[in-house]
Amino acid sequence: MLVLGVDPGSRVTGYGLIEKKNTLLTPVHHGQISFPGKMPFYDRIYGIFQKMVEVMDRYRPVEMAMEDLFYAKNVKSSLKLGHARGAVLIAAVQCGVKIFEYSPLEIKKSVVGYGRATKEQVNAMVQRILHLDAKPALDTSDALAAAICHLNWSRYAGLLAGETKKG
Amino acid sequence: MLVLGVDPGSRVTGYGLIEKKNTLLTPVHHGQISFPGKMPFYDRIYGIFQKMVEVMDRYRPVEMAMEDLFYAKNVKSSLKLGHARGAVLIAAVQCGVKIFEYSPLEIKKSVVGYGRATKEQVNAMVQRILHLDAKPALDTSDALAAAICHLNWSRYAGLLAGETKKG
Repeated sequence: MLVLGVDPGSRVTGYGLIEKKNTLLTPVHHGQISFPGKMPFYDRIYGIFQKMVEVMDRYRPVEMAMEDLFYAKNVKSSLKLGHARGAVLIAAVQCGVKIFEYSPLEIKKSVVGYGRATKEQVNAMVQRILHLDAKPALDTSDALAAAICHLNWSRYAGLLAGETKKG
Repeated sequence: MLVLGVDPGSRVTGYGLIEKKNTLLTPVHHGQISFPGKMPFYDRIYGIFQKMVEVMDRYRPVEMAMEDLFYAKNVKSSLKLGHARGAVLIAAVQCGVKIFEYSPLEIKKSVVGYGRATKEQVNAMVQRILHLDAKPALDTSDALAAAICHLNWSRYAGLLAGETKKG
């Protein structure tokens, strides 16, 4: 199963693809989408949409994981983040990629084992889990962390659902 | 010249097309995009994108007018509004429609002559200016107001630019 993790932002959007075979996680491709500061805001938002469609068309991930909706610092940054996040969601629906959302706490817990882990701790653990030669950029490791969280969560999801039904 | 005005929202997105010949403004088509409350958020955002592309493909407006970026009540509603606004912007860039943004104050002043006018006052003036038989819905009249503002503003824009250069 190939999963795409995304960390959207109006300045930088990180993304990463991870393949899972049995219990083995293999990084397939990861990168960042960013634009010159002077580019109009709406062109940057369209650029995120366009690049995400390109990545999804090329790698054909089955599922996408990202942070859920309700976390942003202030009204202005929320509004901008919303545009970037919308661009990623529209690309996913258009490409038929199923969307899964997790809270930052779930993602950090799943990767570092600790919900209040720093970005740097997440970064170091992502590098270790995926056996990457170099540390990825912080936005990229957040995206990869979302994908790892989804792959870990779905590993147990069936089992837990079964247990609940039995109980 | 055919101008599309849009008032984006994650629950209801209003839109309206106005044609200008000489000084005469003619309403061409207007409506609202809304979805059942239970529809997943990302499907609603994709639906706004899809419907806006449909409207732009059908009517081929040259320019689009909407409220500018920095006005929303709180972090959560800003984030949701950002998604809807992103969907409209992506549709416009994809369809080659030029984007113009105005502050709520500019739009109200242009339509009612008073920057702090209520939605109801805007609604009544939009009906009068466009000689509509019935009052449009509030989200629709906000969208039409943005288009009227753009058409009024662009009427004087050339002149003002000329004056500035002369001075």
